[in-house]
Amino acid sequence: MQNIIIASTSTIHGGSYLDYLIEELKELYKNTSSIVFVPYARPNGISHDNYTDKVRHVFSKIDIDVKGLHEFPNPIEAITEAPGIFTGGGNTFVLVNQLYKNKLIKPIKDSVDKGTPYLGTSAGSNICGLTMNTTNDMPVVYPESFKTLGLVPFNINPHYLDPESNSKHMGETREMRIAEFHTFNTQPVIGIREGSWLKVNNNTIILKGKLNARIFEHGKLPYEIEPKTDLSQLY
Amino acid sequence: MQNIIIASTSTIHGGSYLDYLIEELKELYKNTSSIVFVPYARPNGISHDNYTDKVRHVFSKIDIDVKGLHEFPNPIEAITEAPGIFTGGGNTFVLVNQLYKNKLIKPIKDSVDKGTPYLGTSAGSNICGLTMNTTNDMPVVYPESFKTLGLVPFNINPHYLDPESNSKHMGETREMRIAEFHTFNTQPVIGIREGSWLKVNNNTIILKGKLNARIFEHGKLPYEIEPKTDLSQLY
Repeated sequence: MQNIIIASTSTIHGGSYLDYLIEELKELYKNTSSIVFVPYARPNGISHDNYTDKVRHVFSKIDIDVKGLHEFPNPIEAITEAPGIFTGGGNTFVLVNQLYKNKLIKPIKDSVDKGTPYLGTSAGSNICGLTMNTTNDMPVVYPESFKTLGLVPFNINPHYLDPESNSKHMGETREMRIAEFHTFNTQPVIGIREGSWLKVNNNTIILKGKLNARIFEHGKLPYEIEPKTDLSQLY
Repeated sequence: MQNIIIASTSTIHGGSYLDYLIEELKELYKNTSSIVFVPYARPNGISHDNYTDKVRHVFSKIDIDVKGLHEFPNPIEAITEAPGIFTGGGNTFVLVNQLYKNKLIKPIKDSVDKGTPYLGTSAGSNICGLTMNTTNDMPVVYPESFKTLGLVPFNINPHYLDPESNSKHMGETREMRIAEFHTFNTQPVIGIREGSWLKVNNNTIILKGKLNARIFEHGKLPYEIEPKTDLSQLY
């Protein structure tokens, strides 16, 4: 029953906000004329109002009304009754912190599992995984837990970045960080490159976009999968 | 009474482990012939034993014996009685998680405040700040708290990295991440570039090495400070 887009990023280099996904969004939200936007991740500390305005502007082009979750007196009720949900990117710690404060983890999961169409970008994609332990974000606040929606049976690493061979910086590569994650955790991680997304529908989880994704399974060497691969058997 | 080195990194490009700091370490540990090494940050998941062996090898060159904190039956007692402490880099979440599990935050702080010489590199430097909210690491485990030692009155951002002007990756720059931190927190953050360190001694906090550091104060534009600047008045 799930109908989900888990996108690496909202904006690809040289493009504008969500433009590369517009056809997918028309399809995702084809049975609704309004959605609830979750602005909690607050990229660069933007206000909930300003973030929602930005999203409203883009969705107006495909005739979908947007209401910010912060505009509702009862956010749990708003999620339960939402005809569609979009959680935008920003800081995953800030997002998850606010979701726990407002007791929204279970309501969102229940709503999406019942078929409410869901779009996540970046931080909004991270929370589709089992936990937020593979976010790239700075831990600027301390959320009640790192457990997230578990809409898919693995973790997400959005904005997946290949190592830069000529860098002199001694920090870890993304691949080294995910290997560290697997020292302490066993679930698979999907590294989704910018411009790619997962489409969850009819019990399949299909990689879409032009690029491969990188799969990290506990105890195995990382490997690449091509667009159109179904990841629903990955546990 | 504090006598601390807070280093951005253990290893600079083209160098070997701790080699650029050797003269500083001779000075820091001049009154002791042995130190306790805290291997908890486990870079790339390395074992406590292997990590300690690596450190032991380097310190043998300056005639200092190294014992791993994990080798002691009572870690609190080991810290309290340590003639010198070194906390190595790795993953700050893993480090802080283990420090809380073993109830070591206060014992380390008390020991260092009483004058026990302390070296931190990378994650071991992060914990010298008020909180670990400005770490660059992936949150692979969930520690009991993000509060850290508070040996200095600000936060540390080690491996500070300037924006890459020709990058096509749409992720945040380090400066944007720290700005996000200041949406939710007010303490200053010191971005220490690789090859630089802070020397804390006689109530001064001096920037050392060849590079400037970048200072982020809440509500101000970021600015640069030069080597030899004293940061002890920064709150």
